[in-house]
Amino acid sequence: MSDETKAGIGTMTVTQVGIVVRDIEKTARAWADVFGVAVPPIVITDGLDKAHTQYRGASSTAQAKLSFFRFGQVSVELIEPIGEPSTWLDFLNTHGEGVHHIAFEIAGMDEQITYLTSKGVPLIQRGDYTGGRYAYTDGEPRLAVILELLENFR
Amino acid sequence: MSDETKAGIGTMTVTQVGIVVRDIEKTARAWADVFGVAVPPIVITDGLDKAHTQYRGASSTAQAKLSFFRFGQVSVELIEPIGEPSTWLDFLNTHGEGVHHIAFEIAGMDEQITYLTSKGVPLIQRGDYTGGRYAYTDGEPRLAVILELLENFR
Repeated sequence: MSDETKAGIGTMTVTQVGIVVRDIEKTARAWADVFGVAVPPIVITDGLDKAHTQYRGASSTAQAKLSFFRFGQVSVELIEPIGEPSTWLDFLNTHGEGVHHIAFEIAGMDEQITYLTSKGVPLIQRGDYTGGRYAYTDGEPRLAVILELLENFR
Repeated sequence: MSDETKAGIGTMTVTQVGIVVRDIEKTARAWADVFGVAVPPIVITDGLDKAHTQYRGASSTAQAKLSFFRFGQVSVELIEPIGEPSTWLDFLNTHGEGVHHIAFEIAGMDEQITYLTSKGVPLIQRGDYTGGRYAYTDGEPRLAVILELLENFR
């Protein structure tokens, strides 16, 4: 890691913009139609046994349907919440449909969560997926948006 | 332009994520603090005489304070609305602080607006800035987010 990228969370590259929606099949078809691309697959996140989802420090059986559109360096991720509690459902209930988070690929999940907590951006939800793990941190009060950390195992 | 990029709005590269906030000085300081970078300058958009701002087909004297953080291909743009009417203030009143738009750099503003309108994503607001022009289109009903088109003169 170069000196340039050591500050903050160790990266200055946004890799994903996540949008919470009520009907992912409908919204994925609309994105495909508007941008002239094929409708991507819709996947369901792992259950608690594999994802080990933690919402505000307690296990949650919440899941989500996901669909991804690639826009250069950035993927737009559509997210439809399934079950509760989750940061996705909280967002839908509070703000309605819209951009839930921007995501960064980081190294060292626990130390980055500790760093962000020290900066007033505390953990909301975390979990695992095949090949990596994620954490949502509550950037809303200071940064006006939730930050997602993604750590992919190499 | 290659065949690959002819569909849709002619690009698949997101270049900006725009976040509407109530107090740009405070939020810009927080972003700089969390990411370990200098606080960027805050600029005020041009007045009606230069920006020729059109909101839902009529002239608007609304302006905004802007500040930019560079994250690779994508800039995060902080926006504090000044005056009314504007899509920025509408968003703040409807959703609160949060991500207002994702932006694409396009060629041929009028034809792209016509294309998006034909896809159910109509024009909300447009205007000029030094070196280019912008348009916000109402992606909220179909895409769950506003799209901004940016056309920089070469």
